[in-house]
Amino acid sequence: MKTIAVLTSGGDAPGMNACIRSVVRGAIYHNLNIYGIIRGYKGVIEGDMIKMESRSVSNIIQQGGTILKSARSDEFRTKIGRQKAYEQMKKHGIEGLVVIGGNGSFTGAEIFYKEYGIPTIGVPGTIDNDLYGTDYTIGFDTAVNTALDAVDKIRDTADSHDRVFFVEVMGRDSGYIAIQTGIGGGAEIVMVPENPDSIEGVIESLRSGRNNQKSSSIVIVAEGEEVGNAHYVAIKAKEKLTNMDIRVTNLGHIQRGGAPTAMDRILGSRLGLAAVEGLIAGRKNEMVGIVDDKVVYTTFQDAINKKKPLNKDLIKMVNILSI
Amino acid sequence: MKTIAVLTSGGDAPGMNACIRSVVRGAIYHNLNIYGIIRGYKGVIEGDMIKMESRSVSNIIQQGGTILKSARSDEFRTKIGRQKAYEQMKKHGIEGLVVIGGNGSFTGAEIFYKEYGIPTIGVPGTIDNDLYGTDYTIGFDTAVNTALDAVDKIRDTADSHDRVFFVEVMGRDSGYIAIQTGIGGGAEIVMVPENPDSIEGVIESLRSGRNNQKSSSIVIVAEGEEVGNAHYVAIKAKEKLTNMDIRVTNLGHIQRGGAPTAMDRILGSRLGLAAVEGLIAGRKNEMVGIVDDKVVYTTFQDAINKKKPLNKDLIKMVNILSI
Amino acid sequence: MKTIAVLTSGGDAPGMNACIRSVVRGAIYHNLNIYGIIRGYKGVIEGDMIKMESRSVSNIIQQGGTILKSARSDEFRTKIGRQKAYEQMKKHGIEGLVVIGGNGSFTGAEIFYKEYGIPTIGVPGTIDNDLYGTDYTIGFDTAVNTALDAVDKIRDTADSHDRVFFVEVMGRDSGYIAIQTGIGGGAEIVMVPENPDSIEGVIESLRSGRNNQKSSSIVIVAEGEEVGNAHYVAIKAKEKLTNMDIRVTNLGHIQRGGAPTAMDRILGSRLGLAAVEGLIAGRKNEMVGIVDDKVVYTTFQDAINKKKPLNKDLIKMVNILSI
Amino acid sequence: MKTIAVLTSGGDAPGMNACIRSVVRGAIYHNLNIYGIIRGYKGVIEGDMIKMESRSVSNIIQQGGTILKSARSDEFRTKIGRQKAYEQMKKHGIEGLVVIGGNGSFTGAEIFYKEYGIPTIGVPGTIDNDLYGTDYTIGFDTAVNTALDAVDKIRDTADSHDRVFFVEVMGRDSGYIAIQTGIGGGAEIVMVPENPDSIEGVIESLRSGRNNQKSSSIVIVAEGEEVGNAHYVAIKAKEKLTNMDIRVTNLGHIQRGGAPTAMDRILGSRLGLAAVEGLIAGRKNEMVGIVDDKVVYTTFQDAINKKKPLNKDLIKMVNILSI
Repeated sequence: MKTIAVLTSGGDAPGMNACIRSVVRGAIYHNLNIYGIIRGYKGVIEGDMIKMESRSVSNIIQQGGTILKSARSDEFRTKIGRQKAYEQMKKHGIEGLVVIGGNGSFTGAEIFYKEYGIPTIGVPGTIDNDLYGTDYTIGFDTAVNTALDAVDKIRDTADSHDRVFFVEVMGRDSGYIAIQTGIGGGAEIVMVPENPDSIEGVIESLRSGRNNQKSSSIVIVAEGEEVGNAHYVAIKAKEKLTNMDIRVTNLGHIQRGGAPTAMDRILGSRLGLAAVEGLIAGRKNEMVGIVDDKVVYTTFQDAINKKKPLNKDLIKMVNILSI
Repeated sequence: MKTIAVLTSGGDAPGMNACIRSVVRGAIYHNLNIYGIIRGYKGVIEGDMIKMESRSVSNIIQQGGTILKSARSDEFRTKIGRQKAYEQMKKHGIEGLVVIGGNGSFTGAEIFYKEYGIPTIGVPGTIDNDLYGTDYTIGFDTAVNTALDAVDKIRDTADSHDRVFFVEVMGRDSGYIAIQTGIGGGAEIVMVPENPDSIEGVIESLRSGRNNQKSSSIVIVAEGEEVGNAHYVAIKAKEKLTNMDIRVTNLGHIQRGGAPTAMDRILGSRLGLAAVEGLIAGRKNEMVGIVDDKVVYTTFQDAINKKKPLNKDLIKMVNILSI
Repeated sequence: MKTIAVLTSGGDAPGMNACIRSVVRGAIYHNLNIYGIIRGYKGVIEGDMIKMESRSVSNIIQQGGTILKSARSDEFRTKIGRQKAYEQMKKHGIEGLVVIGGNGSFTGAEIFYKEYGIPTIGVPGTIDNDLYGTDYTIGFDTAVNTALDAVDKIRDTADSHDRVFFVEVMGRDSGYIAIQTGIGGGAEIVMVPENPDSIEGVIESLRSGRNNQKSSSIVIVAEGEEVGNAHYVAIKAKEKLTNMDIRVTNLGHIQRGGAPTAMDRILGSRLGLAAVEGLIAGRKNEMVGIVDDKVVYTTFQDAINKKKPLNKDLIKMVNILSI
Repeated sequence: MKTIAVLTSGGDAPGMNACIRSVVRGAIYHNLNIYGIIRGYKGVIEGDMIKMESRSVSNIIQQGGTILKSARSDEFRTKIGRQKAYEQMKKHGIEGLVVIGGNGSFTGAEIFYKEYGIPTIGVPGTIDNDLYGTDYTIGFDTAVNTALDAVDKIRDTADSHDRVFFVEVMGRDSGYIAIQTGIGGGAEIVMVPENPDSIEGVIESLRSGRNNQKSSSIVIVAEGEEVGNAHYVAIKAKEKLTNMDIRVTNLGHIQRGGAPTAMDRILGSRLGLAAVEGLIAGRKNEMVGIVDDKVVYTTFQDAINKKKPLNKDLIKMVNILSI
């Protein structure tokens, strides 16, 4: 193996740049040529890629987002798109690929391998932490700390006005961000898809909290339909709890950006290096992760299909700590 | 004058605690007794107040919100409510009042004075900075920096995905937060009530920016009806700019909380002390402010009715800096 | 068991308050009385303790430091001091103790148990992360992120002036803070006690980095004698590298304070609850920790005497990533 | 005037990049060519400069440091150095210069003008805020907020251990950073060069504070000889206050870096544009500043020689607020 490439795909996540830096410098350390592909699979198809040097990734470890940019590529889902992609890779002499992204990105890589035999190692880069095969995904810790910082601010105003706040956080199919933000933020209630509360149950909890002399409350809601929609839940709650001053806030896209935390920089750095070393060792179609502080490789099949359960102790702990 | 009291009223703002601390210690320094009234005018009516000592305000200067809490009081708008309030003040021997809040709070104080002769000094505490008689209100600088931090994060993801973001900030009737956040955040467009852009103009600017090779853009929208509603504006923009990836985020209540900036702590401290010294000097029915780094007192009439214009140079500068 | 108590001992660490909150609410949840002891073992001897209610720990989860305060107690090292302590505990009916602190605190607890049979569970609260029996100690993640934030700032000025900075971080006997700060901060060199670099080696690395077109460099130094003293190392480096602009900064006590990160709040919460449940289950003389995301209990003997090694991969990675 | 250039000189300050961006885009807006000179006057002499486009300054407004770098230039202090500088400017067709920096930088510009007639406008960029002719210098507000954030953290640990902390901040000849950090941080004492406390006075204040039931104290020290050296003062204090636990921390270089605050970004933006417009209007040998929210130009002579006094009210307020 002489030449590899790296791309970011799917939603951006803080720590992706730390990972790109590690892939680039890891490749150079192991005497490989390394290309950075711009805008994910779209850039492969269009041959939009640049040869990276050690200096190309100076001073990016602390930056949010991804210097390689990310984009959707409908074309890569077609046979003809993937053929163009292969031709570009052949043209540049690329023999291996590191894909930093999530589920969808790995699916594409696997199909591409089956058709053209280019080995890929995936790196879990998504704030949602919903990937099997790694304890944490790149960006998750930063997203939680950003959400927590917001909840701390909201708590100031909730306390000052004796209000109830419904705060919606990201994580459509997974309650990781919600549960960590909820415990860290001292929330009274956390609504996660893994443990669906009935809205009635939430209303009952708020009522008994008020009886228990709580003057303000925070409810964290993991985004989703109805019970995952903070506005919807709040409207229902207002109907029943007419004596409470109920407000809603949706943290939105701020959860995706910002300087990565130490944990995300280190995770990105470790995984980037391990991806390169995995390719060199002949691995393919696997996602690299850290489980119990050790580097592990998981087949794309498992990473995509298996479910990483939420720690039930954490869900239980919310109730104990909010008494 | 032997005994005075302090309350916070209206929306909470970072720096209010620094101001309360300064009122309390300023009063003690000048040998006055000082009461802290809980939940604004509601607390006056209910006699919910506590004698403050120097230690009562230890370690609060860095806290957002208000330790005295704030609340609406419909009862204080009635004659009978104000009579109860007066009786409580007489009972506690309170001869002067410091009210930290906004427009509505000062109106109440003025009526109360006309009826019962209790002198009040107002302190401008509101994140909106929309009060005449002071260059800055307590909480404004913190709100701007919080919004700016959010915009920095959003810029990371906007750049990574070549997106256009409409970001709604607070300031219903005033574009102060929007213009400062816009300039500080390097926004391409800032929509403020003082200088209403047509939505068509905004769309045109985004189109020409894209032609000018800008791959991402930030539009700051000061909250309001239609043109002040980021979701509404974004929907209109999407209709015309179908090739752009347009997103919306509403920063919401995080703008109210958080540890105050240096400027808000110092402003709160200066104004709190000046309010106490104003009462001692026999002032009444005035708001204390800082204009050109000097303490000034403005009648409630002027503070409430006069308009503080937005610096036109700043509006113009947005366009120059986004080329 | 009807009544237990909690104290903090040794250096304060962010997340201790989250842990105190969890001990208090965990105890109440399990129908125990709970005392908060002020100033560690000193407070036990002096009977300086207060009955805690659920509301006693409201709104502290986000605060640095410890509301129970911490202090040295030479008296507790004496037989007579411990006897007084025992009498106070008997007087208050305290049958179990949670000690949040480090090595020295656990040693005291063990002696006390041998003499008076009061069971204690220890909780690892120290920013240094140098305790066997837990992957992370409370406060470590916050300290690393604080140090990292400082290094990001220093990198701005190092780059602007083409300087070499020696940055000293905490961790007298352990390089955990240094190695994580170094990798996260993109440092060129990290000097840790576990892997002593010769000063000559450091000088050589800096020289070759400069030859390799690096215009600025960051060296992280874990505090200690000579090779752990950034000022000393810098003086030696200046003698040899006369053409470089070399500066030193010692991050000092800022590493101990500040609002805890999500990780430290969650860790503190989990460990506090597990400490209470350990006592209820009849455990004693053990430190509770989290290893591989599971609660584990380790004897004080092992926690104090066994060494938790630094991950060698991380040390190696610094060199690869700084090429 | 067809072509101008911009450079940064002296110590870097957060907001310099916002200012560079504004100079570049302001120049382009007014149809001027604009060069960015690397490493200050050194870069002029060496002809190290690049033509700037609007895109050259994208995404830098939030970055600390200076993308143009800064350096000392002993050669520019010589006649021969300045002649080389002039030749480079002639060669590039540069007819005007914007110098972002402090006192020393303006002195150089003035001499250069006298010899070669190249008009220069200076922009006050220094964290110390010690320049006459502007209410605030670029970088000051960020430095104060950084110092304040550090003091908030130190207060956590001071309170937890009942300690006295001496915290040294930057500002060799001016107490601006110290006084604002002190008031904002709730310090008990602030030692500034403008109002030299005797060390005995400081010791007396600490002793009476302790008598007055203060369990912890913060003393802010503006750097300098003896009374401006926190370590020295602390040693003296320890000799007399043997029952207090006294610690020292020097905030050091972290005060120079970091993402600029809103105020510094806006100030940098306004001053950069005004500098360009000043050159166009034929101004020279002047520093542009903002006084009472208005753009003003001050001769280099006055900016260099006149003294901007510290607001005496602030000094007095420290004592009142720490009772």
